[in-house]
Amino acid sequence: MAKTAVAFQGERGSFSEEAAYKLLGRQIRALPRETFSAAFESVAKGAARLCLVPIENTLAGSVYENYDLLLENRLHIIAEVNLRIVHNLITFPGTTLASLRQVFSHPVALAQCGRFFARNPQVQKVPFYDTAGSVKMLAEKRIPGGGAIASRTAASVYKARILKTHLEDHRENFTRFLLLSKAGSVPAGANKVSIVFSTRNVPGALYKCLSVFALREIDLTKMESRPLRGRPWEYFFYLDFLGNVKEERCRKALAHLAEVTKFMRVLGCYKRAGK
Amino acid sequence: MAKTAVAFQGERGSFSEEAAYKLLGRQIRALPRETFSAAFESVAKGAARLCLVPIENTLAGSVYENYDLLLENRLHIIAEVNLRIVHNLITFPGTTLASLRQVFSHPVALAQCGRFFARNPQVQKVPFYDTAGSVKMLAEKRIPGGGAIASRTAASVYKARILKTHLEDHRENFTRFLLLSKAGSVPAGANKVSIVFSTRNVPGALYKCLSVFALREIDLTKMESRPLRGRPWEYFFYLDFLGNVKEERCRKALAHLAEVTKFMRVLGCYKRAGK
Repeated sequence: MAKTAVAFQGERGSFSEEAAYKLLGRQIRALPRETFSAAFESVAKGAARLCLVPIENTLAGSVYENYDLLLENRLHIIAEVNLRIVHNLITFPGTTLASLRQVFSHPVALAQCGRFFARNPQVQKVPFYDTAGSVKMLAEKRIPGGGAIASRTAASVYKARILKTHLEDHRENFTRFLLLSKAGSVPAGANKVSIVFSTRNVPGALYKCLSVFALREIDLTKMESRPLRGRPWEYFFYLDFLGNVKEERCRKALAHLAEVTKFMRVLGCYKRAGK
Repeated sequence: MAKTAVAFQGERGSFSEEAAYKLLGRQIRALPRETFSAAFESVAKGAARLCLVPIENTLAGSVYENYDLLLENRLHIIAEVNLRIVHNLITFPGTTLASLRQVFSHPVALAQCGRFFARNPQVQKVPFYDTAGSVKMLAEKRIPGGGAIASRTAASVYKARILKTHLEDHRENFTRFLLLSKAGSVPAGANKVSIVFSTRNVPGALYKCLSVFALREIDLTKMESRPLRGRPWEYFFYLDFLGNVKEERCRKALAHLAEVTKFMRVLGCYKRAGK
């Protein structure tokens, strides 16, 4: 049986690939793509059946580019997964903690491991374009005294060694990923809905939009805003709420929302991930 | 009389400096800083009396780092200004449109001038760390066939030539900047308020927060959310609304908001900028 192709941004061994295994198991074919836009496109054009993209991190915030791409592309959210971000210090044989001099990684990962660098002033931080990409580079160049900060999956993909785990300063570091497909369907057990809308130009517009949920005791879990290009100081709002689009209460809330918005689209209905 | 020192992020001639002149006139001393954090810090530590930072662009969205810095630092918003972003093609004598081969600028600026590069395929885009910085670099290195995309102010600061103006694809390209000071005061004519709050963990919490404004017919102009670090999937909300903290209606709304939030702070009360 052919394995399902799942596209993601980054090199093999990225946190997105790790999240894909957590959500879908090992029986998938990982399809690395250079940009988020290329990952979306590979599903739109059929090179991959699914793609998995990060949408928010509990320390760094939303991945705003992916909010924009959700609106521009007509893909559907069919699942989500939360991944705890564990940063590992990865080296190749010959480099130990004592001989370590340079650590390569994405600037965000380097910034999230500030305490390790404060305790080891002999080790230089070297910004690199990608976490897993820095392990890949070391696998090719074998830089003496060189290490990388990346996922456990990156160490396994490039057959490297984990010298130290949990380099991150904050343990409460999670990234939420969305699984996207071309065809929309509501999976069994779906209990969460993502939508995007723009408000009418009337006083209290946003309040009216939120009231369609509050009046039906529907809980919101996330709200994000992005600029409406070409209309300065107007915004798209992205909302996640708990419910299922087939439930009467939610159907009525969405019909009510359509009445008070200028534009509205359901991005997907899926099962809420555990913490 | 000593000129007021105004700190901003970027090299001399940045769009922030241009915005500072628009808001405060030419009688200021421009204090360029490498990072947003350093610009905030120069006010907190007294090196500058004011700093001016971008908070949102109508095409690219919010400058999220500055939302976080507003919360971390205890500076007060005392004014805002909207600047139309006009991208200029800037060169030094010897380089004409015919001999132009490379254009240096910040990646966001290069991306906003896509049509120019599509029409001039002989011209290569070269990503650089800063718009004004690319003019500064050309002033020093005089690269034959080299140009930069930057503000009118950058051309004047480095005594360069504007070869072509309005390179930007979208004319509806505005950036909103905030003027920050250490001491809080409410300027005459102030009619806009910025606040930040976190909600209580109860159903409909955000709806209840917005109701304190809707019930008093107070208009919201912007809402933004950022992660609450250390508390996964909880958020700070940043809200701008029209009014003055000394008005009874607004005082009551803020008192009411304090009742239904876990945390609340007024970031400033200032005069709303024209479009």
